[in-house]
Amino acid sequence: MKAERELRRLLGDDVVLAGTTRQYLTDASEASELHGHAEAIVLPTHPEQVAGVMRWCYDHDVPVVARGGGTGLAAGAVPTEGGVVVALERLRAVRSLAPELWRMWVEAGLATADVARLARENGLLFAPDPGAAEQSQIGGNIATNAGGPHAFKYGVTGNWVTGLEVVLAPGELVRIGGPIRKDVAGYDIKSLLIGSEGTLGIITAAWLKLIPAPEAQLPVVAFYTSAEAGCDAMATVMGSGLVPAAIEYLDEGALAASATSFPQPVPRAAAFMLIVEADGSAAEAHRVRTELVEALGENAVDLYVANHRRAIDQLWRWRAGASIPISARRGGKVSEDIVVPLERLAEAIAATREIGARHRLPACSWGHAGDGNLHSTFMLDRTNPDELARAKEAAAELFTLASELGGSVSGEHGLGFLKRGALARQWPPAAVSLHESIKRLLDPKGLLNPGKKLAR
Amino acid sequence: MKAERELRRLLGDDVVLAGTTRQYLTDASEASELHGHAEAIVLPTHPEQVAGVMRWCYDHDVPVVARGGGTGLAAGAVPTEGGVVVALERLRAVRSLAPELWRMWVEAGLATADVARLARENGLLFAPDPGAAEQSQIGGNIATNAGGPHAFKYGVTGNWVTGLEVVLAPGELVRIGGPIRKDVAGYDIKSLLIGSEGTLGIITAAWLKLIPAPEAQLPVVAFYTSAEAGCDAMATVMGSGLVPAAIEYLDEGALAASATSFPQPVPRAAAFMLIVEADGSAAEAHRVRTELVEALGENAVDLYVANHRRAIDQLWRWRAGASIPISARRGGKVSEDIVVPLERLAEAIAATREIGARHRLPACSWGHAGDGNLHSTFMLDRTNPDELARAKEAAAELFTLASELGGSVSGEHGLGFLKRGALARQWPPAAVSLHESIKRLLDPKGLLNPGKKLAR
Repeated sequence: MKAERELRRLLGDDVVLAGTTRQYLTDASEASELHGHAEAIVLPTHPEQVAGVMRWCYDHDVPVVARGGGTGLAAGAVPTEGGVVVALERLRAVRSLAPELWRMWVEAGLATADVARLARENGLLFAPDPGAAEQSQIGGNIATNAGGPHAFKYGVTGNWVTGLEVVLAPGELVRIGGPIRKDVAGYDIKSLLIGSEGTLGIITAAWLKLIPAPEAQLPVVAFYTSAEAGCDAMATVMGSGLVPAAIEYLDEGALAASATSFPQPVPRAAAFMLIVEADGSAAEAHRVRTELVEALGENAVDLYVANHRRAIDQLWRWRAGASIPISARRGGKVSEDIVVPLERLAEAIAATREIGARHRLPACSWGHAGDGNLHSTFMLDRTNPDELARAKEAAAELFTLASELGGSVSGEHGLGFLKRGALARQWPPAAVSLHESIKRLLDPKGLLNPGKKLAR
Repeated sequence: MKAERELRRLLGDDVVLAGTTRQYLTDASEASELHGHAEAIVLPTHPEQVAGVMRWCYDHDVPVVARGGGTGLAAGAVPTEGGVVVALERLRAVRSLAPELWRMWVEAGLATADVARLARENGLLFAPDPGAAEQSQIGGNIATNAGGPHAFKYGVTGNWVTGLEVVLAPGELVRIGGPIRKDVAGYDIKSLLIGSEGTLGIITAAWLKLIPAPEAQLPVVAFYTSAEAGCDAMATVMGSGLVPAAIEYLDEGALAASATSFPQPVPRAAAFMLIVEADGSAAEAHRVRTELVEALGENAVDLYVANHRRAIDQLWRWRAGASIPISARRGGKVSEDIVVPLERLAEAIAATREIGARHRLPACSWGHAGDGNLHSTFMLDRTNPDELARAKEAAAELFTLASELGGSVSGEHGLGFLKRGALARQWPPAAVSLHESIKRLLDPKGLLNPGKKLAR
C-alpha cells in the first residue's frame, strides 16, 4: 500500500511492519469483537519518528492511531477508521532514574510493570496500579489517566506525571513540564493531554514522580451479608480517621463467580466483600490494620487477614484477576466503569443488578469502592447477538444512572470508541462544546485517533 | 458611569459598589505600586449574577476582572485595562460539608482559612496552605493553583479540587466535575481552568476533597553553615525512605532578616535553615521526627525541635511571616517564585545572590525546598526608581536561570500581570502558541482579565 511504501522510504524498513497483523488492530475490549484496519503499522524507535509519521499523515489526510500495550477496555486504540497505527512498544528507554530525587524519566512504551519494578528496586513506589501491568505501557496509562486500587490513597496516573514529551499536530515534538514538582506558568496543557486517549497528541515520554515505598502493605478482607452492610462498613472506616491505601469491593455476583479461586474459603452467607489495605512503616501499617480489623469487623460475617508477603501477593493477584472468572461465567461480558458520589455506591450496586434483571442478563459489579468507581457488568453469551444487543441497552442505562447520581460515565477506562457519545449525558452543553472545540484546536483535520472520545 | 448604571439596573443596587475604591484595584504585589482602574465594581451574591456581569461585559466589549482576597503577588487581580471588577467575597456559602465522605462544596469567596478551619473542626485536613490564608479566598487559590509548605507531601490546590462551577464566556454558568473522586470521561477542562488566573473563566464554587487530619505535626528546624550543606541534608532526608510533610528553607540573607523574631536564638554560624515536618498518627510522627533529627543533625550546627502545639504554631507563624522582615529590611523587594529540579536548588540559591550582586541589590531566597520552589528576592528602596529598574532586570535574569535549569518561572504565584511574557522563555514555541489559542478559544473577545497570563 502507498502509506506503507512511503513511510518505509521516510523512516526505514525496520520501523514499518510488513503488512498489518491483527495484534495491532484490536485491544482488550470485550464482547464487541471489534477489529480495525490500517494502511500501515509503524513501530518507531525514536520520538522524532513519531513526529515524522504524524507529519506524513497530516500531509496526506490519513488518520494516525497511537497504541500502547493494547490493554484498553473501551477500544480506544482500535483503528476503526483505518490509517496508520503507531505502536510505541520500541520506545521504552529509561532516560533517567534518580531515586534520591524521587523521579524517573521514561519513554511511553515502557511496560507499567517495569516502571513499578524499577521504582521498587530503588526503595520507591510508583503508585498507580491499573490492571494488566505487565502488558500495558506507561504512555497508554497516561493517555487514559489510568487508575487502579491504590488510586484511593495515591491518586490516578496523572497525579504522578510532572512533564510530557508529546507529538502535537501537524507533527511537532514538544516538551511540556519536566523534572519539576510545581509549575503554574502556563495553562495546564499537560493535564489536557493526560486522559485524551491519543485524540489530541501522541505521548512519547514522561517525567514521573515517585515516593518512598511503604515498608508494609497489609490488606484486610471483610465479608458482609449485603452491599448495604458493606457500604456501611466502608463509611465507618472513612469516619474513623484512618487513611487506607485502597478500598476495593466485590458484590454478590462478582464474589460468586470468583470465590472458588479465593485463597481462603468464602463464608456461605457472604454477599459482599471489602478489601481494605493499611500501609506505611511496619509499625504504622500494623497499627492501622488493627484498627481496620475492628472497624470492619463490627458487622462482618467473617474477616481474612493475609499475614505474610506471599499471602498478600496472592490476594492482590486474585483481585486483579477477578474479571476473568466473571467473563468465563457465560463466556462474555459487557463491563463499564461508572463513578458515583460515595454515598450513592450501594444504590449504584443495586441499580446495576436491577438494570441487568430488566434486560434479562445476570449482572454484578466490583471495583474501587473508596473512589465510588464500579465495574458494572452484564454477563452474556457472546454467540447470542440478542444478548449482546440487550447488554448494550443495559450499558446505556448505566450511563444514565451515573449521570443522574451526579457521577461520571468513566472513572478510568475512558470513552474510547465504545463509549463515544456518552459524555453528552454527563456534561452540560457548554462543556460538551468546549470539549469539541479543544479537539478541533489541537487536531484541526480530525486525524488523531478519529472516532474516539467523541462527546456526542 | 454607564457600566455602573447599567449593572445596577441589571443586578440591583446592593450588588454594585458606589464608585470604585482603591481596595479593589490593587493586590499584594509589591514594589510595583500598581493600581488599576475600573468602570464598576460588582459584589455578586449569587453565581448567576457573575454570569450576568460577564454577559453584559461580553455584549459591551468591556473587560471583566475576577478577584478573590487580593493577596496575589503577580498583580493577577489588578484591573490594569479597566472594565468591571467582580469581587467574589460575598459568594462564601458552604453548600455542603460531608466529613464522613471527606468532602466539601464551597463558594469561591470563602476564605482559605475558613476552609481549613471547617475541615479541622471535623477531624479533617484541607492540605493546601498558601500564605495569607485569612484574607485569601479558595476561588483565588484555585485560579492560581496555589501551593504552600505542605504541597510537598500533599500537592497543590488543584490536587484537591474534584469539580468546579465556573462562568465561561460569553456568560454561562457551567459545572464540570462534582463530588466524585475519579473522572476520565471528557478532556480535563477542570485542570485547564485551575491556575488560569481568571483569564479563561470565573470560578464561582468548587468541590473539594479532604482527608483525615494527621494526629500530630512535628517540625524539626536544622541550621547549616551553607546552602550546600543544607541541600545535602535535604538529599539525605529524601534518600532515607521518609516522607516529610514539608521541607522548607531560608538562605543566609532571609535568615539574617528574620532571625530576631525566630522563637529561639539562631546560632551565629547559621547560614541556612531547613524546616522539615513529620506528620501522621502520634506514634508515626514521633518515629519519623526521631529519624529526621538523626538525618538532619549529621552536618547541622544546631537543631531546634518544637515540642508542644504552641511552639509548633509559633514556628509556622514565623515561617509564614518570613517575607515581612525581609520586605522591611530596605523598605521593599521584588520577589519571584521560580522552580528548579531539586538537584539544582543549591545552584539556584547561589545564582539568586550572584544576580543580586551583579545588579547591586542585596538578594536572598527562601521557600519550598522539597519542591525546588524558591522565593528569590531582591531587596530595594522603593523610593529609588533606579533600584526598581535594576530589580526588574534582575528578575528577568531569574526567569532565564529557571528556564536554563529546566525549571519554571512560577511555582505558585502565576504569571499575572508582572510576569506576563515570561512563559515564552520556558516553553517551546508550539506550546506557547497552544497556550495562546486556548485563551482565544475560551475568551474570543479577549475580555477576561486582559493583559494577564500572557505567554509573550
